[in-house]
Amino acid sequence: MRPSGRKPDELRPVRLTRHYTCHAEGSVLVEFGNTKVLCTASVEERVPPWLRNKGRGWVTAEYGMLPRATGSRNDREAARGKQQGRTIEIQRLIGRALRAAVDLEALGERRVVLDCDVLQADGGTRTAAITGSYVALVDACRLLVKQGQIRRSPLMGQIAAISVGIYNGTPVLDLDYAEDSEAETDMNVVMNEARGFIEVQGTAEGHAFRRDEMNAMMELAEHGVAQLIEIQQAALAD
Amino acid sequence: MRPSGRKPDELRPVRLTRHYTCHAEGSVLVEFGNTKVLCTASVEERVPPWLRNKGRGWVTAEYGMLPRATGSRNDREAARGKQQGRTIEIQRLIGRALRAAVDLEALGERRVVLDCDVLQADGGTRTAAITGSYVALVDACRLLVKQGQIRRSPLMGQIAAISVGIYNGTPVLDLDYAEDSEAETDMNVVMNEARGFIEVQGTAEGHAFRRDEMNAMMELAEHGVAQLIEIQQAALAD
Amino acid sequence: MRPSGRKPDELRPVRLTRHYTCHAEGSVLVEFGNTKVLCTASVEERVPPWLRNKGRGWVTAEYGMLPRATGSRNDREAARGKQQGRTIEIQRLIGRALRAAVDLEALGERRVVLDCDVLQADGGTRTAAITGSYVALVDACRLLVKQGQIRRSPLMGQIAAISVGIYNGTPVLDLDYAEDSEAETDMNVVMNEARGFIEVQGTAEGHAFRRDEMNAMMELAEHGVAQLIEIQQAALAD
Amino acid sequence: MRPSGRKPDELRPVRLTRHYTCHAEGSVLVEFGNTKVLCTASVEERVPPWLRNKGRGWVTAEYGMLPRATGSRNDREAARGKQQGRTIEIQRLIGRALRAAVDLEALGERRVVLDCDVLQADGGTRTAAITGSYVALVDACRLLVKQGQIRRSPLMGQIAAISVGIYNGTPVLDLDYAEDSEAETDMNVVMNEARGFIEVQGTAEGHAFRRDEMNAMMELAEHGVAQLIEIQQAALAD
Amino acid sequence: MRPSGRKPDELRPVRLTRHYTCHAEGSVLVEFGNTKVLCTASVEERVPPWLRNKGRGWVTAEYGMLPRATGSRNDREAARGKQQGRTIEIQRLIGRALRAAVDLEALGERRVVLDCDVLQADGGTRTAAITGSYVALVDACRLLVKQGQIRRSPLMGQIAAISVGIYNGTPVLDLDYAEDSEAETDMNVVMNEARGFIEVQGTAEGHAFRRDEMNAMMELAEHGVAQLIEIQQAALAD
Amino acid sequence: MRPSGRKPDELRPVRLTRHYTCHAEGSVLVEFGNTKVLCTASVEERVPPWLRNKGRGWVTAEYGMLPRATGSRNDREAARGKQQGRTIEIQRLIGRALRAAVDLEALGERRVVLDCDVLQADGGTRTAAITGSYVALVDACRLLVKQGQIRRSPLMGQIAAISVGIYNGTPVLDLDYAEDSEAETDMNVVMNEARGFIEVQGTAEGHAFRRDEMNAMMELAEHGVAQLIEIQQAALAD
Repeated sequence: MRPSGRKPDELRPVRLTRHYTCHAEGSVLVEFGNTKVLCTASVEERVPPWLRNKGRGWVTAEYGMLPRATGSRNDREAARGKQQGRTIEIQRLIGRALRAAVDLEALGERRVVLDCDVLQADGGTRTAAITGSYVALVDACRLLVKQGQIRRSPLMGQIAAISVGIYNGTPVLDLDYAEDSEAETDMNVVMNEARGFIEVQGTAEGHAFRRDEMNAMMELAEHGVAQLIEIQQAALAD
Repeated sequence: MRPSGRKPDELRPVRLTRHYTCHAEGSVLVEFGNTKVLCTASVEERVPPWLRNKGRGWVTAEYGMLPRATGSRNDREAARGKQQGRTIEIQRLIGRALRAAVDLEALGERRVVLDCDVLQADGGTRTAAITGSYVALVDACRLLVKQGQIRRSPLMGQIAAISVGIYNGTPVLDLDYAEDSEAETDMNVVMNEARGFIEVQGTAEGHAFRRDEMNAMMELAEHGVAQLIEIQQAALAD
Repeated sequence: MRPSGRKPDELRPVRLTRHYTCHAEGSVLVEFGNTKVLCTASVEERVPPWLRNKGRGWVTAEYGMLPRATGSRNDREAARGKQQGRTIEIQRLIGRALRAAVDLEALGERRVVLDCDVLQADGGTRTAAITGSYVALVDACRLLVKQGQIRRSPLMGQIAAISVGIYNGTPVLDLDYAEDSEAETDMNVVMNEARGFIEVQGTAEGHAFRRDEMNAMMELAEHGVAQLIEIQQAALAD
Repeated sequence: MRPSGRKPDELRPVRLTRHYTCHAEGSVLVEFGNTKVLCTASVEERVPPWLRNKGRGWVTAEYGMLPRATGSRNDREAARGKQQGRTIEIQRLIGRALRAAVDLEALGERRVVLDCDVLQADGGTRTAAITGSYVALVDACRLLVKQGQIRRSPLMGQIAAISVGIYNGTPVLDLDYAEDSEAETDMNVVMNEARGFIEVQGTAEGHAFRRDEMNAMMELAEHGVAQLIEIQQAALAD
Repeated sequence: MRPSGRKPDELRPVRLTRHYTCHAEGSVLVEFGNTKVLCTASVEERVPPWLRNKGRGWVTAEYGMLPRATGSRNDREAARGKQQGRTIEIQRLIGRALRAAVDLEALGERRVVLDCDVLQADGGTRTAAITGSYVALVDACRLLVKQGQIRRSPLMGQIAAISVGIYNGTPVLDLDYAEDSEAETDMNVVMNEARGFIEVQGTAEGHAFRRDEMNAMMELAEHGVAQLIEIQQAALAD
Repeated sequence: MRPSGRKPDELRPVRLTRHYTCHAEGSVLVEFGNTKVLCTASVEERVPPWLRNKGRGWVTAEYGMLPRATGSRNDREAARGKQQGRTIEIQRLIGRALRAAVDLEALGERRVVLDCDVLQADGGTRTAAITGSYVALVDACRLLVKQGQIRRSPLMGQIAAISVGIYNGTPVLDLDYAEDSEAETDMNVVMNEARGFIEVQGTAEGHAFRRDEMNAMMELAEHGVAQLIEIQQAALAD
């Protein structure tokens, strides 16, 4: 039995609110139950130094958590003068995941920064961030096309992500904090709309996991991402 | 004529949403028109080293802006490894302002941190942060009383803040970004419910301002803060 | 009764020593009683990146305190790797104050840095720094004119600053450390030679201050700055 | 055809040299072909603050690359004052992997630090580091038992790691730099001696990978780790 | 011929002004010609963590240059967030030199910090700093004895320092900036009152120096330090 | 009697292994007994900003110690975000020493970085680093000549370094850690093949040293460096 009463293969209610803030080229509030992440896509007409004059653009991500997004307050990283290892690991994952969906040559010599800021955390913030950032990125690309800055969208695929894990011996989909902090295994899976894998990161928290457990988690992930892909499409159709 | 069509002494619509996030002891979204700041109050059962065993508590504030809260993206301070001078100046102001309302001995040996994070900026973020933080602080103190950790609220007064300035030669109340960026003088005023001044910070941006202009701005500020005090009370009465 | 025996509207002895060190374009030791600040103006033939090729110059300030300028030793900021919030707040104030006196286009594409280093502190270091920096800035501008680098001085006004406050219930001028550490209200006022206000920063340390108290402090400040303006002129006439 | 002429399921020559340096409790040079990593295990009789007086120990890892371990020189992280995101990601992986093999209560209130310094890089440094660190950790634990500081080894399993990937459309084992920089998919797999998975991290570099490709890579990884487990045992039997 | 017209073995005018600032336990302005360094000795009733409860004290030094102590402005180290290599090298030298004169057990569990801040630089700042710091340290120790905190002075010897070098092929004493920037060899020598060497640091700037040149420089240094020892004694006798 | 049983003027066994790693233009493992330092020379086709377009090159050094190169583990400087004072002092010494052997104009507009990383420490790491770096630098210069990038080697002399000191009242050559930690005086001497001095750094650890002791140490240093010069030549002749 899951703490939330959900079935093992049941997602939390997922909500994508586009145009959540007014300045960014793409701005999406993504909610997976009580997890709330604001994802903005900012377009800048310049690329990092090592990409200059190569005819290609860049997509990168930054991740942050408001100090009181969690049950007890975390130090503000800006005040400590340093991002935590966990933060760096997560933002690198988000960046890699989204770049997998973009034709960087078609983007042209510009940079898109995806800022993922967790307003409220209840497990699964990194996969929510990837799922929401994709929608923000679509909005930003549509704007570039609309403004005539690029002829066609540089997006080559659709990206969503979900966490799966083994909780109390049972493979479950979309772990909330109560599950995540007790899970024996925790796995984050990033996929595209064609059921292709972009990134798989699984960690045994308690004991090592077996091939069959891994297969069961992959099944759940495919099932969950398929739903997220539809939720993204519905949001983008509005 | 103001860009927004407001009268010189007219506030933007102000909204205070309590319990905006679920983990903090106090959590308030404050909106002054398009300016949106999330203010959380976190209670910690410890004080800074220089206050240990003195029977007194501490109230402090931290301020941040999401990278794309503004028209063009600002570097993330956590990634740059350093808070900007402007950030430090603002969070010191917020902390001083709120401490003016608190009996630190009545608070006991605990620390309250007010985190003010700007989700969307359109001028006046620091005064909005003070106004919203006060409400978050009340909620946190009420909880401490309710939990029996302190016998009575350590709050000794009510605090609100507003910006005033001289725009196109006319003293105006509550400047938005369009006005702020063009204003000849910009002044932030923190007051209590008894019309006492907690902090006054006025800066000539263009030419020096005269005593009579200063007096006119002070009048506007008193007028504006009086309304904010009522709006806070209404929000806290819910 | 003031600890120093001064009358409420009495300045400490103020001394401005020009050419205090030999390398800087302007170098002034400013003394307000026991407060001693070395202010140097350095001219650099380049502007910050965001001002390049705009035909305008820049004036900025940096503030520091020698570790043992005060009663007990403070950590050296260079060794800690970080400027304190107080330092940043002060140097931003000094920079804004002095820029208010300069026609940045007439200055041309160059930068003037005002370094204000406190050799000995006894209250009022920031207002002393502004008052002394103005004289150093005049010397630097005169040199630029003399060397033929600019045709006329870019200075558009004269700037001086003083602290006022409420000590033991009485408004007083030019607080020393003994008063400052006990004051109920502390206000720093920057003005020009035409009695215009450049910056006003007042903080209630104990209880909130009233409009009439504020007016009394403003009177004192006008009275004090008028004297400082004359002292600066006398120093510059030598 | 692989650049090195190896078969798809063929490891590079792997060498483990124990007691490579003289001061550390465990010190192992691990070589996978031209990749050379020095892994030391240092035992400290103290734990991080958050673990004090809990009767448990801690195992952590730090990773570094000598500036010229690679084809072109990288900035020294100590001189830049910051570890790269890649470094942080890798050392977190190594730490998690090794902790999975340790009964932290049996270790007692002490900390083991695994320092993995790459002397020469040719792909697969993180999996080599895990494989070598395990041997260094065994040596350190044996010493603790021998010195009578703990009664039995806190090691609960054997850990090794290998990279797999898809190169030119073919799943291959143990990628060297020439392959890694061209691979379509790159996956690092950490396993124990019982074929249990500790960590799986797979990233699509070019196009998304399919379930069947993932399965093929997992097979190769199992095959490779099984050999590494034997090589570790042989080294430890000396 | 030296730029200053001095003879090869001639010191610049040396001046030691005690009680230059009012807060420090020792405060000395040392001048070697145009080189002016403010040396303060601060006594703190605590020792660094690694010395706690060992019955011994510590003496350390910090060095800084005001940004415009030199011909062109140097970045403020506090603003850059980092001390330069040169600064660190110098302050380590000063600390070692002064510790050589102190019986750390007789000092008791307290720390003396010698802050050496260059107000104006014209070569030889580090040796001036050592020579002036010694006098500040004597004043601080005398105060400790006078206050009854220690029974006898912990000073075991007298320390002074001078630079020597080879300029235009001739060994010279006490190089000023004009000489220093052109010198073929530059050597800093720290000695005690018994002609014993505390530290010798010689660097060939142009070509390597010979044993006989080294001997000639050592002679000059002995000659110069002997005079400085007398100047210190005269200053301390006032 | 020395702890190692060596005679006062006896070097430890010295070994220079060229081509120790495969990527660098020069790569030498230098061993002085148990002290092992990896010295790599990296050629970069660019110079620091302040040298651009001046027709000259640059040679610089960086020094590091693996965390467990010593008896107890030192914090990793990259993780602490700061190089220690000792590290900075040493790498500045190495850089100055090697630059003394190079005609920077003949090197052309390129930079050689000498990375000296201590794998195992037993005293004398800085002098070993200088001695080994010279050989790595020769290899890098030979490669530049061979590749036709410069016509002749920019090396103008041969550089080696050794430590000398006073141990138990006796001047000794090449101190190991057991001696170094007990020595009364410690001196590092850098010389060239013509017995010229490049750098001399002597520090009294216990009592001040006399002229005759200094002379005795210089004799030992000359004796030691003469042998190192031959060992370098033999290594380079292979």
